[in-house]
Amino acid sequence: MASRPVVVLAGGVGAARFLRGLVRAVPPDDIVVIGNTGDDMWWHGLYIAPDLDTVTYWLAGVADEARGWGIRGDTFTAQAALATLTDASWFQLGDRDLATHLYRTGRLTSSAPLHTVTAELAEQLGVRSRILPMCDEPVETRLKTDAGDLHFQEYFVRERYRPRVREIYWTGLDAARPAPGVAEALSASRAVLIAPSNPSISIGPILRVPGMRELVAAVRDRTVAISPVIAGRAVKGPTVELLRAEGIRPDALGVAEVYRDVARGFVLDSADASLAPAIAALGYRIAVRPTMLDDGEAAREVARAALDILQQPAAA
Amino acid sequence: MASRPVVVLAGGVGAARFLRGLVRAVPPDDIVVIGNTGDDMWWHGLYIAPDLDTVTYWLAGVADEARGWGIRGDTFTAQAALATLTDASWFQLGDRDLATHLYRTGRLTSSAPLHTVTAELAEQLGVRSRILPMCDEPVETRLKTDAGDLHFQEYFVRERYRPRVREIYWTGLDAARPAPGVAEALSASRAVLIAPSNPSISIGPILRVPGMRELVAAVRDRTVAISPVIAGRAVKGPTVELLRAEGIRPDALGVAEVYRDVARGFVLDSADASLAPAIAALGYRIAVRPTMLDDGEAAREVARAALDILQQPAAA
Repeated sequence: MASRPVVVLAGGVGAARFLRGLVRAVPPDDIVVIGNTGDDMWWHGLYIAPDLDTVTYWLAGVADEARGWGIRGDTFTAQAALATLTDASWFQLGDRDLATHLYRTGRLTSSAPLHTVTAELAEQLGVRSRILPMCDEPVETRLKTDAGDLHFQEYFVRERYRPRVREIYWTGLDAARPAPGVAEALSASRAVLIAPSNPSISIGPILRVPGMRELVAAVRDRTVAISPVIAGRAVKGPTVELLRAEGIRPDALGVAEVYRDVARGFVLDSADASLAPAIAALGYRIAVRPTMLDDGEAAREVARAALDILQQPAAA
Repeated sequence: MASRPVVVLAGGVGAARFLRGLVRAVPPDDIVVIGNTGDDMWWHGLYIAPDLDTVTYWLAGVADEARGWGIRGDTFTAQAALATLTDASWFQLGDRDLATHLYRTGRLTSSAPLHTVTAELAEQLGVRSRILPMCDEPVETRLKTDAGDLHFQEYFVRERYRPRVREIYWTGLDAARPAPGVAEALSASRAVLIAPSNPSISIGPILRVPGMRELVAAVRDRTVAISPVIAGRAVKGPTVELLRAEGIRPDALGVAEVYRDVARGFVLDSADASLAPAIAALGYRIAVRPTMLDDGEAAREVARAALDILQQPAAA
């Protein structure tokens, strides 16, 4: 680990797109990612970590970036055969992707902790940044919906986020602790960036790990959040609906309110410039930029802007 | 199940080749297979049942018969990707084959018993015969060798049966019981055939399940064993070495001695005709036939001969 790393709290695709830019702004070896594992699940006996995998695949340069998940050019032979055996094949896994899950599950069932296996996979795929799970213990993001009590993946993938969400809750948090390396990375950090991921179901679980919020709050003066909401709409997925389910105002101001105790800087989209004064009034130093992370260059600009905020004088 | 089924105690490939002939001699719906699960193992989180799968794939007509394991025309994309992540990729699984293991493991981890899942897989693959595991409980065939204490698959696949075997032993037998359906099938049977599988590590575990030997002994008068040893050599694999490790004479006579208390009939190869008098002297009715099961027709002839023995008068 770099002596003064840039630490990123990360969900899935939104974070991965942001990280693709960050590695153009700072040396990849200087980056430590703390990833959400609330979406992890056991699937036909295999342990799947969708957010960790997404971040790993994007940083390794093997991600299917158009699709947002899985490995570029993967085949789906096992998946197709499974679909002939059972209807419970809604979670799509490519054949190469399966190797990741086989490896991880084999290691976990041999008692290797998740942070060790996550590091091994990143290294074997050639990722130079360090990727840490938020915790080694199982934490599950669950949703009470009008279609029943669902695991996040059931809601998101199987039900395609159509059910109305009444409540989001977590299991396993009581026994969870920040994974080994998390506290050290945060306290040694030169900057902490909260990626433009869903504040409720991607960043939320990370900050809910007992002790985590305090660790981030302790370095609040060097923490910057990037809004995942542009003009009141999520770039992708059900972010707005899930913010509403948590009673969060579904725009950049609402997101800024959520991170008020853990971040000092805030990057919002140019389309939301009118919210800038209200966000600044919360005590944030702000940057207003185009935050659609369409390509690595756009993402680099946003990463640069986030880091630059930390150079602003406190009164700005 | 047929009212008076033909029951087959079965290991892997040897049994599968035999069954390919049996289904030409009797209606497939009349056949109940009791399969060895001592070779089963957890592999990277998935539950693998090599012998049950081999039998299922051959009866379903999807087996790679030349290779002896797996599915014809399967691809190995996941396997190749796994090999880039770990050296522990010695057990070869095709992509379509993986779907079987994913399905089975998913069902087992949802608390479905192995016999239920085995039946589901057979049905989904269009197998008309009934396939039962010897027991639902985990039983493991292990070998003490000069390369250490190994799971059967480690010895057989990873070490390619090169280590010298000092002792064969089993774990889990104490808690094991014949799977639901086994006792009923045996007592209702019109014939019980012991397939030409390895008596020590394929049929041995089946007969060691507490209660099983008594169930077969009770129908001894209609039980026929087919020798897997021809002219003192196994058709395939380490049968002879494993017989020696158990102190069994490694020829048709030694096999006949092992089954003396559970079988009344014995089919041996023409090359072993000189052993026929000694085997008959053990109390067996015998048939001497070419037992190389090269194709379905040859296997049908052996199956026919085994069933015909039961028509012989007791004194023959």
